Amino acid sequence: MELVAIVTILALGQFVLFSIQVGSMRGKHGVKAPAMSGHPEFERMFRIQQNTMEQLVVFVPTLWIFAQYVDSQWAAGLGLVFIIGRFVYRSSYLKDPAKRSMGFTITFLPTAVMLVWGLIAVLRHYF
Amino acid sequence: MELVAIVTILALGQFVLFSIQVGSMRGKHGVKAPAMSGHPEFERMFRIQQNTMEQLVVFVPTLWIFAQYVDSQWAAGLGLVFIIGRFVYRSSYLKDPAKRSMGFTITFLPTAVMLVWGLIAVLRHYF
Amino acid sequence: MELVAIVTILALGQFVLFSIQVGSMRGKHGVKAPAMSGHPEFERMFRIQQNTMEQLVVFVPTLWIFAQYVDSQWAAGLGLVFIIGRFVYRSSYLKDPAKRSMGFTITFLPTAVMLVWGLIAVLRHYF
Repeated sequence: MELVAIVTILALGQFVLFSIQVGSMRGKHGVKAPAMSGHPEFERMFRIQQNTMEQLVVFVPTLWIFAQYVDSQWAAGLGLVFIIGRFVYRSSYLKDPAKRSMGFTITFLPTAVMLVWGLIAVLRHYF
Repeated sequence: MELVAIVTILALGQFVLFSIQVGSMRGKHGVKAPAMSGHPEFERMFRIQQNTMEQLVVFVPTLWIFAQYVDSQWAAGLGLVFIIGRFVYRSSYLKDPAKRSMGFTITFLPTAVMLVWGLIAVLRHYF
Repeated sequence: MELVAIVTILALGQFVLFSIQVGSMRGKHGVKAPAMSGHPEFERMFRIQQNTMEQLVVFVPTLWIFAQYVDSQWAAGLGLVFIIGRFVYRSSYLKDPAKRSMGFTITFLPTAVMLVWGLIAVLRHYF
């Protein structure tokens, strides 16, 4: 499970990086807390970070269940695709929010595959 | 722990469903990203999804600690109540946000029970 | 791992407390769902709760990986610092959002230390 732990830490580290960038944009554009709007670039970076959190809430437990009941090396590989997809999502969203779908799909697909495949594997293990 | 893994996947799958519905409402009512407001139905679905995420952040670790230190079948049963409560919360919130409290309680109670009972069980295990 | 489970439950319980306080402020200041703004005190408490959730998403998995690959007693100790830091963050943010940085740092540092130290430990374990 070491590979799965490494991928988990990298995905969480990526989210920490995005969170720091939300803070930087806050400073850069003078958006004072608790305001969460006021400048387009800040709002984009905030939505990128929020969407990444929504994905992580599903991704992390799914990754570990999949690693446990299917295969830990496949889990680590699909997890890497997730991380790459998030970087694509971030850079395309910052340029133009309307073009965020490809990056979104690259992150969402590995999670969806692990969720469905994981469910089937656990069900077969149980019955 | 298979039952707990199944319930975890179902609860995460429910959240994915809610997230997809937020996206659909965005399209239906023409609310363009990064905006998070602009139409009542979109705002309701967004709050349902956000509140579900807040609940999941507590629910998932609590479920597994409870399963480990108390009982995994009880954990799975209480987890099912959580999922049912979230569907009740979703449909009542969409009709009228003021009537969201019953669905909220059905989801919150299983988590609160597992949190308190889990803490007592771990403390007794330790001392 | 009992100490780590106890710290996890306490951190999740703290977040539940913050969430309840968001609900109370909603009632106190007449901010009706699905609105997420309308009164400064409500907005501050909401941001405190949201930021705590963002921290928890990273903190919980990091705590357990660190406990597994480095040391579970150190994990529990650093976890306690996280919880204390969140209380400091909450009270200073409520007084003045501009003075939230110390409380933020007290929570963020334990997570950052466990993330980096955990990664090094897992990598050394693997290679």
